[in-house]
Amino acid sequence: MGTIIKELTKVEDARKIFLNAIDPLSATEHLLLLDCINRIVASSIKATRNVPHYRRAAMDGYAVQSSDTIGASVINPVMLGVSDDAGQGTCVRVHTGSNIPDNADAVVMIEDTTPIGEMVEIRTQLHPNKHIGCIGEDMQAGELIFKAGHLLRPCDTSVIASLGIAEVEVYRKPVVAVIPTGDEVVPRTTSEIPLPGKVLETNGLMVGLYVDKWGGKARYCDIVPDSPELIETAIRSNLDADMIILCGGTSVGERDHVPAVVDSLGKILVHGVGLNPGKPTALGIIGNVPVVCIPGYPVAGLVGLFEFARPALRKMGNIPDIPETIIKARISSKINSKEGYLTYARVILDGNIAHPVMTSGSGVLSSVARANGFVLIPENVEGYEEGQDVDVVLID
Amino acid sequence: MGTIIKELTKVEDARKIFLNAIDPLSATEHLLLLDCINRIVASSIKATRNVPHYRRAAMDGYAVQSSDTIGASVINPVMLGVSDDAGQGTCVRVHTGSNIPDNADAVVMIEDTTPIGEMVEIRTQLHPNKHIGCIGEDMQAGELIFKAGHLLRPCDTSVIASLGIAEVEVYRKPVVAVIPTGDEVVPRTTSEIPLPGKVLETNGLMVGLYVDKWGGKARYCDIVPDSPELIETAIRSNLDADMIILCGGTSVGERDHVPAVVDSLGKILVHGVGLNPGKPTALGIIGNVPVVCIPGYPVAGLVGLFEFARPALRKMGNIPDIPETIIKARISSKINSKEGYLTYARVILDGNIAHPVMTSGSGVLSSVARANGFVLIPENVEGYEEGQDVDVVLID
Repeated sequence: MGTIIKELTKVEDARKIFLNAIDPLSATEHLLLLDCINRIVASSIKATRNVPHYRRAAMDGYAVQSSDTIGASVINPVMLGVSDDAGQGTCVRVHTGSNIPDNADAVVMIEDTTPIGEMVEIRTQLHPNKHIGCIGEDMQAGELIFKAGHLLRPCDTSVIASLGIAEVEVYRKPVVAVIPTGDEVVPRTTSEIPLPGKVLETNGLMVGLYVDKWGGKARYCDIVPDSPELIETAIRSNLDADMIILCGGTSVGERDHVPAVVDSLGKILVHGVGLNPGKPTALGIIGNVPVVCIPGYPVAGLVGLFEFARPALRKMGNIPDIPETIIKARISSKINSKEGYLTYARVILDGNIAHPVMTSGSGVLSSVARANGFVLIPENVEGYEEGQDVDVVLID
Repeated sequence: MGTIIKELTKVEDARKIFLNAIDPLSATEHLLLLDCINRIVASSIKATRNVPHYRRAAMDGYAVQSSDTIGASVINPVMLGVSDDAGQGTCVRVHTGSNIPDNADAVVMIEDTTPIGEMVEIRTQLHPNKHIGCIGEDMQAGELIFKAGHLLRPCDTSVIASLGIAEVEVYRKPVVAVIPTGDEVVPRTTSEIPLPGKVLETNGLMVGLYVDKWGGKARYCDIVPDSPELIETAIRSNLDADMIILCGGTSVGERDHVPAVVDSLGKILVHGVGLNPGKPTALGIIGNVPVVCIPGYPVAGLVGLFEFARPALRKMGNIPDIPETIIKARISSKINSKEGYLTYARVILDGNIAHPVMTSGSGVLSSVARANGFVLIPENVEGYEEGQDVDVVLID
């Protein structure tokens, strides 16, 4: 028999309570640069050498001693001989990126020169270091380049690679055991239509793919029937994971055992949130393993996942918050909501018009397929009127 | 000897010219649902069956004949017997998701009932189909679920899986050959500091990782020296790829052969764009293989990549445009720009303040590492003043 939901916890409070119970992982691993995109730097990366490690020509042209160019101009050019060491009165041909000879302290751009026989005409005066990239100008040996907690982007890998660093230490991904539950749920391996009353397992697949997308590592577990003993066994055998997400069995019916089992093994922190759809979501902790129990109704499960599993995964994985893509739009018809509930209304964005998806409930999975955005209606607002300007969060 | 840049093409025009020369790929492949995230549906997905495929209880309670509940209320309940077929005057216990017996046409919620001995007290009147999910209510057999061109999200996989579909046909990823060029470039395999005048290969790594991130498949090629013959050989041996990106050698110096070689094998469409950094970018086509030539200066290369390679990859891969994350911010100091150039200024976002990154040029790779956003300054604007409100595009 399920727990009773006595009162609903506000979404924001529920999330705070849950996140407070979660510790970020400290375990790390070493990855090649090719494999480190979207991973989180675990120990600060410092420059192991100067970049550039030599005085670098920043332009195609001639390396010169700047003192040789004093007074040079178009009407009063100076003539320099060509040498291989840029000794006084001479210059050396260089290309962008070339090493600057020790004697030289400036580069005159090719456009400001003309070779005349053995000599080169220089038509501009240069100050010291003109068009020279100094040693360490880009990065100085010992300088902090990336702090722990930095999310690695492709452009960062080239910065790290330029230091001669081949591997980076990043936080390990949180392993998330995804456990689908329900007497009615049957494996997707069958190609026949299931018997009436049976449905194919789909929530676990969706949850696992979101876990992977958000920076975790999904462990797909077998379907567990609505039996407290079997649910307990499944949870116990996954307590080596960093987090557990159970799908289904979170409500208050006689087949809803999940929150009670979690509570018996650890502690249920929240059961029942002011979230629509998603009200029967339960959040708990067993030892140091956070447990998210999302409703079996797919849309409710999805919303519970977004609100609780995603921030939990981010905190655990040391993943910085990424701003969501918000589109400003106007709704083409009224959206109802219930006071006291944070409501996720599905909409179809068409340019700057958001069409609410009419749906008979949180069981209608295809309403998400048809939608590309959510309009979030706060707890203290009773729906939005036709024509109202709203923020649309893209469902990705 | 390199081509001469006669005049600069406006970024928007250059992009149009280039994209017009590109055909989307039509080749497809079949992938398991577990592997299809961020891939593009290639042939429309229709419902192969009804979902639900049976009349489904939407609530825990009792399946009844609605006609048996006429007039039922808290003060005037009706009493029904318990049966296994919901014949007239009887009801059947059901759970959310249960099959509804043929005789029944409504479900009364458990909260509105009380079992009394062998009978059940029903305290509410039900209309036909109350709390019943009808066959095909979610998806009807034959109904279009996803059109070709749809980018697959985790939530979509569960919709597809619920139809018993295990594999989807998606467009093949564009294979992009990434060819670093330059006499000064040496492989990253060496652990020693390169000789003065030599630099580690880093641009190809960055480009390849962006290609993968944007939905392509990078092919990392060996470094090619600044030799027209060797550049030609490298290009020829990669004309089986869907796109080629060459890094370096795009300017007008005597070592800049890339655009001329591309032009000799096919056609250079644009050489020199009003983009800062990124001016020496060249765009061409060889047969039906688009070729992006980005400058060797890392920041210039990155900007050229964002402006041209990304949209080209999207068009070729049939990938829908994803809105970029824009953050509204105020700049903490003046940003200069040159009229006629679309300028990418690197900024560090700190809340709603964007601090411009002071840098001596497009060769300074670490300026990107330090930055997390770009402020784009249009061609017809000469810089932004301190305190101005700007849009910041996140560098991801």
